[in-house]
Amino acid sequence: MNTPELGLPMAVPAEGLPARVRIHEVGARDGLQNEKATVPVEVKAEFVRRLAGTGLTTIEATSFVHPKWVPQLADAEELFPAVADLPVELPVLVPNERGLDRALALGARRVAVFASATESFAKANLNRTVDEALAMFEPVVARAKDADVHVRGYLSMCFGDPWEGPVPVEQVVKVCRALREMGCDELSLGDTIGVATPGHVSALLTALTDAGVPVETLGVHFHDTYGQALANTYEALRHGVTTVDASAGGLGGCPYAKSATGNLATEDLVWMLRGLGIDTGVDLGSLVATSVWMAAHLGRPSPSRTVRALAGPGDDSDQEK
Amino acid sequence: MNTPELGLPMAVPAEGLPARVRIHEVGARDGLQNEKATVPVEVKAEFVRRLAGTGLTTIEATSFVHPKWVPQLADAEELFPAVADLPVELPVLVPNERGLDRALALGARRVAVFASATESFAKANLNRTVDEALAMFEPVVARAKDADVHVRGYLSMCFGDPWEGPVPVEQVVKVCRALREMGCDELSLGDTIGVATPGHVSALLTALTDAGVPVETLGVHFHDTYGQALANTYEALRHGVTTVDASAGGLGGCPYAKSATGNLATEDLVWMLRGLGIDTGVDLGSLVATSVWMAAHLGRPSPSRTVRALAGPGDDSDQEK
Repeated sequence: MNTPELGLPMAVPAEGLPARVRIHEVGARDGLQNEKATVPVEVKAEFVRRLAGTGLTTIEATSFVHPKWVPQLADAEELFPAVADLPVELPVLVPNERGLDRALALGARRVAVFASATESFAKANLNRTVDEALAMFEPVVARAKDADVHVRGYLSMCFGDPWEGPVPVEQVVKVCRALREMGCDELSLGDTIGVATPGHVSALLTALTDAGVPVETLGVHFHDTYGQALANTYEALRHGVTTVDASAGGLGGCPYAKSATGNLATEDLVWMLRGLGIDTGVDLGSLVATSVWMAAHLGRPSPSRTVRALAGPGDDSDQEK
Repeated sequence: MNTPELGLPMAVPAEGLPARVRIHEVGARDGLQNEKATVPVEVKAEFVRRLAGTGLTTIEATSFVHPKWVPQLADAEELFPAVADLPVELPVLVPNERGLDRALALGARRVAVFASATESFAKANLNRTVDEALAMFEPVVARAKDADVHVRGYLSMCFGDPWEGPVPVEQVVKVCRALREMGCDELSLGDTIGVATPGHVSALLTALTDAGVPVETLGVHFHDTYGQALANTYEALRHGVTTVDASAGGLGGCPYAKSATGNLATEDLVWMLRGLGIDTGVDLGSLVATSVWMAAHLGRPSPSRTVRALAGPGDDSDQEK
């Protein structure tokens, strides 16, 4: 039977959505950081190169945390110079002044600090209280701004926390304001354990804009643990958000959530945005090919629905047995 | 490290959504019909019983098509009486008058006919033109209504078709009106190959209500082939749709789409609806347990993100290797 490739959805714009969305691709950092087997630095560099080749413009490259914390990214000093020539933004994570020094020494022009909306996760991830962590970031952000470097502030556990349960919106607004006042150019609202639903997303975005945080400075970072990431993203778009974090092939997970299902897959996001007539500049076919290539290196199929659908039976064999 | 169960999302209602949604559970029919290995009738009956025990109120039980077409459902005459005592609605599919006779003889109170929005799929699935198929259903619907039996009209390929590509909204509206005029009490708008995105959903629902089809008579039936099903469902809720088709554990697929990923998983839907504060009457824990039980019978893990997250590492081992 003849079943030609569909390839792409029909573009039917919806009212009140942005004309363009910038995808902040996190596959090379958030996607890989919890991989147990070390991915060779050449493979990571090739991954970033291929991602840049798909039309993605912001590709988070690595993290300058202490190698003891995230052994997978211990090669940051090797990786960054290997991709620094690419004509894309290459943000990197910096946990503290030492990390900033390392990033600046290599010429990084975009850095990100990572705060927590909850005390439990601040303690688990940074071994500090929320306020102590903010105090640690203050000189990092100040020095980055002095060097004219763009600063993103990640905020984890914006909706739910595995120890504390639902996270009050006011608590998130408070930390967001602190990060803004510190000088962060952009915030990324993380649903680290994937529990958010669209009404909660709407409530948080409304509270943030009511508190004077410009929607242009807000990005969203959803995990697909319960399959909610794309519906939540759609709600964020309806609020005017134009920066969406996603991970090629859906790579990544959270060590504090039970499921291995991780970040929103960039391919699933691109499919929706194309269907909505929203420009991203990304070639979906190249992106799927890149994720299939990376999945082969990691030895397991991509959890992205779109990758599985477009890559054909070779990639979804575990679903068909 | 202590990571207590989260269990459920925080309920944060969004404006303008319905207070209650009726889930039309299709796992036992749509979910199983393409399984290659025959599922014993006792297992199917137990599946339907367990589904009823979760609080689901509408459970599509089987199909009275010719066994040659769908061998997996050849046991309809055995299955239906085995579950007919359950205090839930048990709709069944009937392709023609012969199927209706068989269903009525067993006391079915809800039947469904299945039409196509496209000529290609009408030809592939029913070996008829769209109009010939509608003509075949006319006496079926008339006789069912005479017997005071509720009739659902399924409409496949409402957004895209694997042979024809994007499906014009007007074409779908035309067939929907024909099904309504014939006497169908309810329509189910199927995205059989999972290509729809929220703007397309919005355009179709707007066109249908503009054409005089009451939104109360509309159900949506999304497949998650490209990960879009829940975002599309959310958009349908925003239009006032209160009937949503889903399949426990995400069972099922479409033989005309390349990926094995099938129906929207009921668990992922229930998670979103609970988060939105929308009542469904379904106990998520029981539903997850039912899907895990069925997955064990089928010999592969559920594709539902929520099932994988809540069922624990035992069920998502293929993701962690």
